[in-house]
Amino acid sequence: MTRRLRYAMVGGGRDAFIGAVHRAAMALDGQYEMVAGALSSTPQRSRESGRDIGLADDRNHGTWQELLADETSRPGDQRADIVVLVTPNHLHYEPARAFVDAGFHVVCDKPLVHTTAQAEDLAALVAARGTLFAVTYNYTGYPMVREARELVSAGAIGAVRKVVVEYHQGWLAGALESSDNKQSEWRKDPARGGPAGAMADIGSHAENLVATVTGLEMESLCADLTAFGAGRRLDDDAGLLLRFVGGARGVMSASQIAAGHENDLRLRVIGERGLLDWRQEEPNLLIHAPVDGPRRTLTRNSPGLSEAARRACRLPPGHPEGFIEAFANLYQGVATDLRMREAHGRAATTQEAEYPRIGDGVRGVRFIEKTVASSASHQKWTLLR
Amino acid sequence: MTRRLRYAMVGGGRDAFIGAVHRAAMALDGQYEMVAGALSSTPQRSRESGRDIGLADDRNHGTWQELLADETSRPGDQRADIVVLVTPNHLHYEPARAFVDAGFHVVCDKPLVHTTAQAEDLAALVAARGTLFAVTYNYTGYPMVREARELVSAGAIGAVRKVVVEYHQGWLAGALESSDNKQSEWRKDPARGGPAGAMADIGSHAENLVATVTGLEMESLCADLTAFGAGRRLDDDAGLLLRFVGGARGVMSASQIAAGHENDLRLRVIGERGLLDWRQEEPNLLIHAPVDGPRRTLTRNSPGLSEAARRACRLPPGHPEGFIEAFANLYQGVATDLRMREAHGRAATTQEAEYPRIGDGVRGVRFIEKTVASSASHQKWTLLR
Amino acid sequence: MTRRLRYAMVGGGRDAFIGAVHRAAMALDGQYEMVAGALSSTPQRSRESGRDIGLADDRNHGTWQELLADETSRPGDQRADIVVLVTPNHLHYEPARAFVDAGFHVVCDKPLVHTTAQAEDLAALVAARGTLFAVTYNYTGYPMVREARELVSAGAIGAVRKVVVEYHQGWLAGALESSDNKQSEWRKDPARGGPAGAMADIGSHAENLVATVTGLEMESLCADLTAFGAGRRLDDDAGLLLRFVGGARGVMSASQIAAGHENDLRLRVIGERGLLDWRQEEPNLLIHAPVDGPRRTLTRNSPGLSEAARRACRLPPGHPEGFIEAFANLYQGVATDLRMREAHGRAATTQEAEYPRIGDGVRGVRFIEKTVASSASHQKWTLLR
Amino acid sequence: MTRRLRYAMVGGGRDAFIGAVHRAAMALDGQYEMVAGALSSTPQRSRESGRDIGLADDRNHGTWQELLADETSRPGDQRADIVVLVTPNHLHYEPARAFVDAGFHVVCDKPLVHTTAQAEDLAALVAARGTLFAVTYNYTGYPMVREARELVSAGAIGAVRKVVVEYHQGWLAGALESSDNKQSEWRKDPARGGPAGAMADIGSHAENLVATVTGLEMESLCADLTAFGAGRRLDDDAGLLLRFVGGARGVMSASQIAAGHENDLRLRVIGERGLLDWRQEEPNLLIHAPVDGPRRTLTRNSPGLSEAARRACRLPPGHPEGFIEAFANLYQGVATDLRMREAHGRAATTQEAEYPRIGDGVRGVRFIEKTVASSASHQKWTLLR
Repeated sequence: MTRRLRYAMVGGGRDAFIGAVHRAAMALDGQYEMVAGALSSTPQRSRESGRDIGLADDRNHGTWQELLADETSRPGDQRADIVVLVTPNHLHYEPARAFVDAGFHVVCDKPLVHTTAQAEDLAALVAARGTLFAVTYNYTGYPMVREARELVSAGAIGAVRKVVVEYHQGWLAGALESSDNKQSEWRKDPARGGPAGAMADIGSHAENLVATVTGLEMESLCADLTAFGAGRRLDDDAGLLLRFVGGARGVMSASQIAAGHENDLRLRVIGERGLLDWRQEEPNLLIHAPVDGPRRTLTRNSPGLSEAARRACRLPPGHPEGFIEAFANLYQGVATDLRMREAHGRAATTQEAEYPRIGDGVRGVRFIEKTVASSASHQKWTLLR
Repeated sequence: MTRRLRYAMVGGGRDAFIGAVHRAAMALDGQYEMVAGALSSTPQRSRESGRDIGLADDRNHGTWQELLADETSRPGDQRADIVVLVTPNHLHYEPARAFVDAGFHVVCDKPLVHTTAQAEDLAALVAARGTLFAVTYNYTGYPMVREARELVSAGAIGAVRKVVVEYHQGWLAGALESSDNKQSEWRKDPARGGPAGAMADIGSHAENLVATVTGLEMESLCADLTAFGAGRRLDDDAGLLLRFVGGARGVMSASQIAAGHENDLRLRVIGERGLLDWRQEEPNLLIHAPVDGPRRTLTRNSPGLSEAARRACRLPPGHPEGFIEAFANLYQGVATDLRMREAHGRAATTQEAEYPRIGDGVRGVRFIEKTVASSASHQKWTLLR
Repeated sequence: MTRRLRYAMVGGGRDAFIGAVHRAAMALDGQYEMVAGALSSTPQRSRESGRDIGLADDRNHGTWQELLADETSRPGDQRADIVVLVTPNHLHYEPARAFVDAGFHVVCDKPLVHTTAQAEDLAALVAARGTLFAVTYNYTGYPMVREARELVSAGAIGAVRKVVVEYHQGWLAGALESSDNKQSEWRKDPARGGPAGAMADIGSHAENLVATVTGLEMESLCADLTAFGAGRRLDDDAGLLLRFVGGARGVMSASQIAAGHENDLRLRVIGERGLLDWRQEEPNLLIHAPVDGPRRTLTRNSPGLSEAARRACRLPPGHPEGFIEAFANLYQGVATDLRMREAHGRAATTQEAEYPRIGDGVRGVRFIEKTVASSASHQKWTLLR
Repeated sequence: MTRRLRYAMVGGGRDAFIGAVHRAAMALDGQYEMVAGALSSTPQRSRESGRDIGLADDRNHGTWQELLADETSRPGDQRADIVVLVTPNHLHYEPARAFVDAGFHVVCDKPLVHTTAQAEDLAALVAARGTLFAVTYNYTGYPMVREARELVSAGAIGAVRKVVVEYHQGWLAGALESSDNKQSEWRKDPARGGPAGAMADIGSHAENLVATVTGLEMESLCADLTAFGAGRRLDDDAGLLLRFVGGARGVMSASQIAAGHENDLRLRVIGERGLLDWRQEEPNLLIHAPVDGPRRTLTRNSPGLSEAARRACRLPPGHPEGFIEAFANLYQGVATDLRMREAHGRAATTQEAEYPRIGDGVRGVRFIEKTVASSASHQKWTLLR
């Protein structure tokens, strides 16, 4: 048994949905323990939130600046191995920069920051410091997403010709902002959510899923962003045409006003020799249809899957794993990297430890920026570079 | 018992898939009998094909011109009540014009003709002659498509915000043209198939389905057409962004290189108050999800459906009806109109007799033309008018 | 083109559901024409029903006895090639016997008759006369049922170990008899429906499906029949344990009070080396799961299916065929046999012409009888022989 | 923040599947910490297993007897609050009895013990000691199972008429015992697995699911147990007919030779006014079909669900929860009861804390015993009492 890795959390206090998910994901496999936090937007609320979940008083801070100062001052065997940033989007850049600059490893929610300039600045700093920096594009943690990536990479469906990706939610179909829902509120304010709404929130997941599974580089896009909700300043719906280097094409639909949908992220990858089809709401399945044969329903942890997919499984086939387990797979990758750095003084390769790195984060920010630019343009195609 | 309606067929001989479907659809309900034909592209083959299916020698013709001359010369109680054109696309315009001009009622396959100019010319002639002219957009014959249209029209999902329509087939994923498949061959030759490939073949069905169910008028579109097949001159794949009058948005994907798909036409209509979701391969179901409640799976001919949907059903719920039955529903509408003209000397209204009329055909041709223009343009949006 | 086969129908008049299905099934492929009928239970209603569907006056009879006399007196080139019996269950035996005795070929609805004694008597007469006798167990007409049978027979799933078959309908969940529903009424009266209710109506289909697909002979059964509907004298629900010669086991559930179900006939066959799973409400699919690999979804008319299955298809994959098409496949088999008898003076083999023969009908009647006996017994197992 | 509850585990060492699941389930919500263990069948392997997962040396025991002695000797603020028994079936009774006798609260895997006599003895001791005793029928921890129970209890489907329950696995389809699979081996040995094979392993889950959701008391059963695997001494397949007090009927199929199935537990409850349908492999959904309306797909944590169901959810709709989360819900109930006993000196009611209690365990053992008796009997019905 190796020791538990110590983590500090910034954000994720009372009423915050995603902070609790991160904590559950880290708890699941017994590799982490929480040692410190600055959990909310005001000092009082931060400390109350920390007490709720049992943080020791001397490591339960009112602000991330206090947390940073305190952690920096502690000896190595007490100090957090990693800092988890789960604040709203506009509160990623400054603390991320500060923690990286101080040499801390960081896990940060997506989208990474608001602008490509910020993203590249942060990436440069991470490169300079040599620290681990993970971005929680959690959907790529699902075993069957990893299987899809392995199949594409192994040529199972031949050269990719077309990608159809959709991410449909219905929770903003009504006028949620006018109600008391903290989740939706900051997301729809440009100063806090960033330049985009649905594209930042869910479109960026779709982009990451496509890039991760296909390995394709996006060349240009054509976007039509719309804000349907009354008084809404940011997009709640998007349609995109995509072109990839090498000639593949894509269609993306992302919407948060898609009444009747819950969290319906679906990816189809059409290759010269077959199809892959995966849906987040049935994550334990992956459809693989060879061009000349019947559809095959691959199931999580079943014989015949790739090692990469099976490593990401905890339970036998037929025993459903879900969202938290996928999230935990990212944290497994992070743990592996942290332990390799500790044991061998070097970072793990992407094969050795699977999790989305800062490069994914930078690419995601650029993608969001370009969709906004494209939507405002009369030109058909907006180049990604 | 009213008399059987007499029909003559042009095209649909040996090896032609769709002609046999038309005949089966007309046979199903016992309302029609075939009396004459000019079934293929050469006189010899035409006559052989006619003999195959039992046409009387004196009404089994080598060419549509002979058929026209013969029918015109016959007394009213022998003459075909309607002429069914199931020739390849490039052989629609000339015979359609000639039969209409001679006063015959016509059923014509889609897409109607190759150019908007032809389409409008034909429509003007139909209007001048006052004849019945049906275009076999057969998918709108499914009862649950009619239910969807009724639900939209009755406000069940509120104002439509977004349409996601896809039509994916995989049969051109390989290099089918090089083989002996007559179906694919003329479709991929611009001189015969027309200016578009997949867009003409299946994209036009998607357009018709959207227009029929939502009643929305398309304002502009942005298309990216691609020919993936080696040596192919016409599109076999398309992605489109759509804008509708009134502000609704749409995303369309149509592909015939979508390996792993058979005939996967699916329409989702997202409104302010709910979702409708229909798939051609499970045509007896329609998903209706109110914005504030669980998904409801509506089934063909079940209690609670609209009269329009139930009229289009032959069998109780749970007894699947399929493609031929949907096709036959168009012919039911045509029969109703023919009988009304005979009995009452006037055409049936669209409520009294449901089938796609020449206006659908004209709109479809324009849609195809505009997608081709858009795909070649650097402008983002191409107006439909 | 061979000539159309002439048929006469007994039963199937106004308000009768299944008669219209038979006529549509015979019309679909253009192989049959209706020439005579005695369509209902009273002479007046019979003649009105005949006029509804366009029977000539001189062949539109008030009773089946008149029909029989008239047909017998006609010359061979006018006489019906086959007589279709679609009367209620208690009106099968007498006319079936009379028509067979007079040398007519017969198609008869299931269950064949009320008692095994009647069934064996009829079978003996058919054997003596050498006539064709088909029993419309229509569900075995589906192409994917035939594919399942071929796969079992070819050893694709190894020796069969277990069969799970269910046939659930909900239409008798309420008190339908008290309403004006003619369909349910005679079925629930022992004098007319026979000794069983749901078992006769749908359980017998389940039995036939199992026997057809697996080829197994049932050895013994243990049944628990229940009448849930208030005042109902015949079973509307059944549970059965089955044992087959050779050691395979089975579980059957048949119910007409299964609220929430429409016409949900499903068969799973579990073999030493795999699974087959078919559902009538999605008839174009067949699941085949090899014991060591992923589930494969076989689709109607797709490459790789057996010849027997593909012969039963009219349309390409992805173009749904349904209930009427399956029914029509039985009539295709009957037509093939009739034409072979005419052309070659001998009956077709079961390979040459696929349709359920009188042996299926006899076995079905025995099965029903034994379930009723078992349900009344304290003995666990009731032998089929 | 209340303190973490301390637990000791017996069994669940290296290679044991279910022990790791228990630990993950307890870790997930941060309510428990593991303090001691005796994890395997030999002292050496026990201690190695304890070191693997980081047990302190002084609480890492070679046998459960040592663990019991050590725990008993510790002061209350160190002693385990609860002992978790995850040993093979034949090693439940003795340690369970000993720990209860010593006043410990216990969580024990199912089936509880081998005989009804043992079960009743243990239940009497638990009653006498007043301790908490949970039996991990984990499938009842799924939120949508709880929703089903609430719907039945609230009369949403009226009086229950029929239950169709199936639990199909395929992992024993081949000759797994001859291989090196520890999981299957003890289960198939009567001395260790108990008097039944598949019935004990999975049939008992099916029984518990039926009882939990419907609240019905089973009156009698008729079972046919079979051992298909070569040389297997215990059943690997079962078919059952069920009768419940009050007249409801049931059909059960449980099989571990059901090739092509993974862990396919499905329950349908048919009432006078509707249907409920739940499948473990899609646990986030519950079908509810009212007798007079369309099927409704209820989803986990969606608005309109009962409080009992929503309390069992961690994530919003569309974010799948799975097997571990359901397991963790049992442990949530146990934690609530433990804390109530600590805070208020009394046990929680079944409403206050949901988890299967010893009564479920006793009933489950009796059910297994009766299926074995029934299978050996020539009598049709075997009474449960």
